[in-house]
Amino acid sequence: MQADLLSPAQFAHTAHLLQQHSPLVHCMTNDVVQTFTANVLLALGASPAMVIDAGEAGQFSAIASALLINVGTLTQPRAQAMRAAVESANRAGTPWALDPVAVGALTLRSDFCRELVQMAPAAIRGNASEIMALAGESQGGRGVDTTDTAAAALPAAQKLARASGAIVAVTGEVDYITDGERTLAVNGGSPLMTRVVGTGCALSAVVAASCALPGDRLLNVAGACAVMKRAGQIAAQGRGPGSFVPAFLDALYVMHGEVAA
Amino acid sequence: MQADLLSPAQFAHTAHLLQQHSPLVHCMTNDVVQTFTANVLLALGASPAMVIDAGEAGQFSAIASALLINVGTLTQPRAQAMRAAVESANRAGTPWALDPVAVGALTLRSDFCRELVQMAPAAIRGNASEIMALAGESQGGRGVDTTDTAAAALPAAQKLARASGAIVAVTGEVDYITDGERTLAVNGGSPLMTRVVGTGCALSAVVAASCALPGDRLLNVAGACAVMKRAGQIAAQGRGPGSFVPAFLDALYVMHGEVAA
Amino acid sequence: MQADLLSPAQFAHTAHLLQQHSPLVHCMTNDVVQTFTANVLLALGASPAMVIDAGEAGQFSAIASALLINVGTLTQPRAQAMRAAVESANRAGTPWALDPVAVGALTLRSDFCRELVQMAPAAIRGNASEIMALAGESQGGRGVDTTDTAAAALPAAQKLARASGAIVAVTGEVDYITDGERTLAVNGGSPLMTRVVGTGCALSAVVAASCALPGDRLLNVAGACAVMKRAGQIAAQGRGPGSFVPAFLDALYVMHGEVAA
Repeated sequence: MQADLLSPAQFAHTAHLLQQHSPLVHCMTNDVVQTFTANVLLALGASPAMVIDAGEAGQFSAIASALLINVGTLTQPRAQAMRAAVESANRAGTPWALDPVAVGALTLRSDFCRELVQMAPAAIRGNASEIMALAGESQGGRGVDTTDTAAAALPAAQKLARASGAIVAVTGEVDYITDGERTLAVNGGSPLMTRVVGTGCALSAVVAASCALPGDRLLNVAGACAVMKRAGQIAAQGRGPGSFVPAFLDALYVMHGEVAA
Repeated sequence: MQADLLSPAQFAHTAHLLQQHSPLVHCMTNDVVQTFTANVLLALGASPAMVIDAGEAGQFSAIASALLINVGTLTQPRAQAMRAAVESANRAGTPWALDPVAVGALTLRSDFCRELVQMAPAAIRGNASEIMALAGESQGGRGVDTTDTAAAALPAAQKLARASGAIVAVTGEVDYITDGERTLAVNGGSPLMTRVVGTGCALSAVVAASCALPGDRLLNVAGACAVMKRAGQIAAQGRGPGSFVPAFLDALYVMHGEVAA
Repeated sequence: MQADLLSPAQFAHTAHLLQQHSPLVHCMTNDVVQTFTANVLLALGASPAMVIDAGEAGQFSAIASALLINVGTLTQPRAQAMRAAVESANRAGTPWALDPVAVGALTLRSDFCRELVQMAPAAIRGNASEIMALAGESQGGRGVDTTDTAAAALPAAQKLARASGAIVAVTGEVDYITDGERTLAVNGGSPLMTRVVGTGCALSAVVAASCALPGDRLLNVAGACAVMKRAGQIAAQGRGPGSFVPAFLDALYVMHGEVAA
């Protein structure tokens, strides 16, 4: 299947919508990326909140604009809390996004992610190995790293989108975003983004936020990918991974005012 | 009730005391802000330690200079460990501070915070919605964001201070610090501080540290607020939220040597 | 016993090996330093992964290149997961490193660390107070801070190395690395490294990574210490603790290309 290149203007439009609507994003994410995820959402004008107790998570996902489920540091109690949050989100009509970190070889997260795919996620965001493993087509990558390219995973992403009803974003050097019928491609970014922890996980939080925006969800999710690729490109110029992080957040902070090139 | 403006010299005095006494602050705080909280305390010359097991937390709060309880990512096991730490702190005479993050609508933390208020905290630091909810006067804000101004919450803060015996700091564009009789106001800061996660939570850790200092606790807590507002003002100049964080920590690092304007 | 000064060229050699072999480091570490630890490993070209569920941790440590056990924010469930990971690592031949944070006065971690020392760690990295406490020669320091110098702890480190079979690194103003017979000393670094949370914990992750490299393990562990001291020295120049962190990661990122002075 062919992919259409996303309009270069979309990142500025999505950043504008995020700033304008300021979605409250309930993040149930892994221990490693919480600060960066929160700061990415804040820089974009969205509002993060991390609530993780099973009882409270169910209460909170019902009033949040969107919910993120990221299984990076999954434990049994967290899986239980995430399940409660998803069920409550579904009852309340809160859209939720899944980041199936390192799904494949590890049992707890793999079983849990397969269960979650059946629970009507609005979006799924992963790297090539994760999307292929979730679609049942491979065993996953090397830890959190991918061993495949996003293009190679595109058929798996399209299959997963049709099976789950979610928008599926398989991200890498080029990102592909699909609803199973239409497919968009997003260029840009920087290899430096793979030398900083949490850029993918934070993207998943922005994807969750974008599911709360008005308009075409496929475009909004692709726009979320474009926002991050654009900021990454700006921030990487002449920098190492340490100075990249502040520059990346600074770039996100002004993105709603950027004019598309 | 009237509030007196804190002397502009107080921030330098408090920073000097923190540097000189280097309080060992036992931080039981939320997952999102741990690194930033530790780095804020270290930049000021204080010494952070995060100990979270119920048994160890009770052992450690007895030997720490101060204890921080922040309920941002509360779970049942953490509530139990925090209770043990508070009880041990009280037996040992260690002052402790409460940050009632997002208290109001969420059941576990709301019940727990109401219990903690009865356990003789030395200080309570929250935003307007949190302080009003804790004083029983509203239902809390939108996640961790406040929907009220600090001035509107001042009567609730004063009531809470009298009921609990704690110094209560309700922070926002202007901070108010009260013991229920006297009230001090602190100006400064920057709106950018609301676009970076953890500035409020880290302030609560500095408030906890300030409760271990000699002298008037109301002044010390107000001084802790002034230290953070001053550093935020310096760091925000011409910066986005990403470059704000390193500049903020750099500003705190030299604050004990600053001469008040 | 005498210590030989490590060759100044070793840091560049170790950085080169890390870049070339890109070890996959399974980090079971404390809540406060996870992001920084991951970013340090990524900057050096290694690959971090945090997997903490007891079942998954056992699966993952068998396929990782190295495992890190850091007890900074230990709880009973985490101790159980760490035990499973170590047992699996030992069966699979995965080398693992121990960071006995604040061992001494706190019961859970002290009992657990004494148990771990019997389980054939490849390396142990701690400050003077921690190493002396683990060797049974003192009660530990003040929280995570040391109250002793590394030189004073050298006999304890040598004793611990002989008893455990591990390479022991006792770090401070000067680092000493010993296998119980040979001892190497590493100079450099900056006092600013003690005003930023996680430099010691991240070093332990690099030590774990270095245990997966080919060649003499004593030299590799000493090289890991030298890499961090060298980057710290570069990053500290004219900076405060906030701007130190990005500069430190930037320095690590180019270290494999540095020519030893």
